[in-house]
Order: sequence, then C-alpha cells, then structure tokens
Amino acid sequence: MAQPLKLYLIRHGIAEERQPHLPDPQRALTAKGRQKTQKVAQRLQELGLQFDDLQTSSLVRAYQTAEILQHQGLVTTIHISDLLRPDGNWQEWLQWLQNWRNQGLTRLALVGHEPNLSTWAEILVWGQPRRQLVLKKAGMIGLLLPEHHNPVGQSTLFWLTAPKLLF
Amino acid sequence: MAQPLKLYLIRHGIAEERQPHLPDPQRALTAKGRQKTQKVAQRLQELGLQFDDLQTSSLVRAYQTAEILQHQGLVTTIHISDLLRPDGNWQEWLQWLQNWRNQGLTRLALVGHEPNLSTWAEILVWGQPRRQLVLKKAGMIGLLLPEHHNPVGQSTLFWLTAPKLLF
Repeated sequence: MAQPLKLYLIRHGIAEERQPHLPDPQRALTAKGRQKTQKVAQRLQELGLQFDDLQTSSLVRAYQTAEILQHQGLVTTIHISDLLRPDGNWQEWLQWLQNWRNQGLTRLALVGHEPNLSTWAEILVWGQPRRQLVLKKAGMIGLLLPEHHNPVGQSTLFWLTAPKLLF
Repeated sequence: MAQPLKLYLIRHGIAEERQPHLPDPQRALTAKGRQKTQKVAQRLQELGLQFDDLQTSSLVRAYQTAEILQHQGLVTTIHISDLLRPDGNWQEWLQWLQNWRNQGLTRLALVGHEPNLSTWAEILVWGQPRRQLVLKKAGMIGLLLPEHHNPVGQSTLFWLTAPKLLF
C-alpha cells in the first residue's frame, strides 16, 4: 500500500515565442520568465518546501524551470521524463506514478506543460477533466493523493496559485 | 448580461473551541486566529487585492475575520448575510448572487464557513460537490464566474491557498 503523496505540478516559466526556425522543444525561458521562476523558487524555499524527487519534461523551457528549482535547493536531483512532454500519455504516467510510489517517497514535483498538468490534476481530484483550473506559467498545483492504489477521483486539491499571487 | 466576476471565498480564522455554555455563534477568534488572519489580510493588501463588496456570515468568528479584512483596507463596507451562516441555503445564495451581479460590480468577497464555501466553489466550477477541496481556516478560494446568467459548472478556479502557503 502506497503512502499519502504530496504532488506538486509546476508549469514552466514564460518562454520565447514560437518562431519559424526555432523548434518548439528548444524554446528557452525569457529573461522575464527566468526572473519570475526564480522568485517562485525563492518563495517555495521560504515556505519550507522540499521535494524527494523532481521529474521534468525534456523541453528546454521545462528543464530550465526545473534547474531553477534545483539551484534554489528545493530538490537534489532532476530526472527527465518523456511522459511529461506535451504529447505525454496520461495512463502511462499514472502507471509510472504508481510504481514510483512503491519507493515510499511522499513529496514529488513535476515540471511540465499545459493543458496536461491541469487536466491530470482534475482527473486525480474529480475523476474527469473539465478544463476549469487556471494554471499560469510558473504557477503550481498541490494535490494530496491518498493511500490508495488508484488515486483517480480520490485526491484532494490543497493549493493552486499563480506566480503573482505568491509574492 | 452580468460582467465576469472575481469571487473570493474566505474561511473565518481559528476560533475558540466549542464549550457547553458558549453558543456556537458567539465563538470568537483566538489570539492566534486574529494574528494569522491579520497576516493574511496584509498579504492580500500587498498583492493589490481590493473588493467592491464584502459579505459575511453574522457568526462572531466570521464577522471578526471580515473586520480584519476591512481594517486592512481591502473593502470599505461590510454587509452581513444570513445566507452565509452554516445553515445557509445554496440555491438562495445563488439567486442572491445573480441579483448582486446586476449592479455591474466585479470583485466580491464572502467570509463564511466550511463545508459550505468549498462545496459552493465545487458546484460553481464542476457543477456538483465532491468534497475534494481543502479550505483551511483563514484560507481562500478564488473563482472567475463568466458572463453567464448561470455560472454553475461554468466558473474557473484560479486560486486556492492555505494561510501558511501565503506567507
């Protein structure tokens, strides 16, 4: 039986606009994006947050966001997960999560993309996606997954914030 | 047609324990409850929040919470609403809200009780209550109600925070 899990879903910061000759996965955080993400990371650290693991999409804007969180001391190591890319599959991710939980760790952060993150949160909390959660860039969602093998529709939402409502 | 409305649902702060000779409506905020609520009010003010109207339950712990928000300059006047008492009726409140919106005001704060506030938020966002939102004392929920006559199942959730995640 898995332990209760605090799951933090963090959207990447503000990135470069799409451009004809810039592949989408290569789009980097802008100066403003870095600055805001850095302020979020500082706030999370001041609030005493610490993650046992941080998994991120491999896309540059997500990986850079994860690095900022790591440099702030919120987590020691970063892992890249293809399941967190924009085309990541929800069912596969859930299966991965159930395996991850078998380690007995209780604080997991994911850095990824919209609409995936807010959709997945809704599935965990209400059992189905309705697209009614507003997750801004560098914003975050906090969920508590109960001691169930299947957390779908059984998790609770304890946090949802935009960067501007955090500092 | 009503304007989009930002609706802030605020739970009263920590209050005195229930006691045999203390009627529930008379339970006041404790020193810790006042202090935390005051810190929340300061944070909201720093974040630039301002309400066009603040409606509160008449119970002492709610009214005192509302007064702290008022003294911090978040709103000019407080109104007491019986619909926000613990036995308040959801349908009547919704009817009241629709009338209130006809004034064209766009930022409304309500101070009340659980489980009513989080239940009402779920009805506005997902159309039905699931009891999956965690609203701590002096915590708050932020909803955006669209330009609809009936916001049920049509509103979006942009904020949910406990006091300890705010400062």
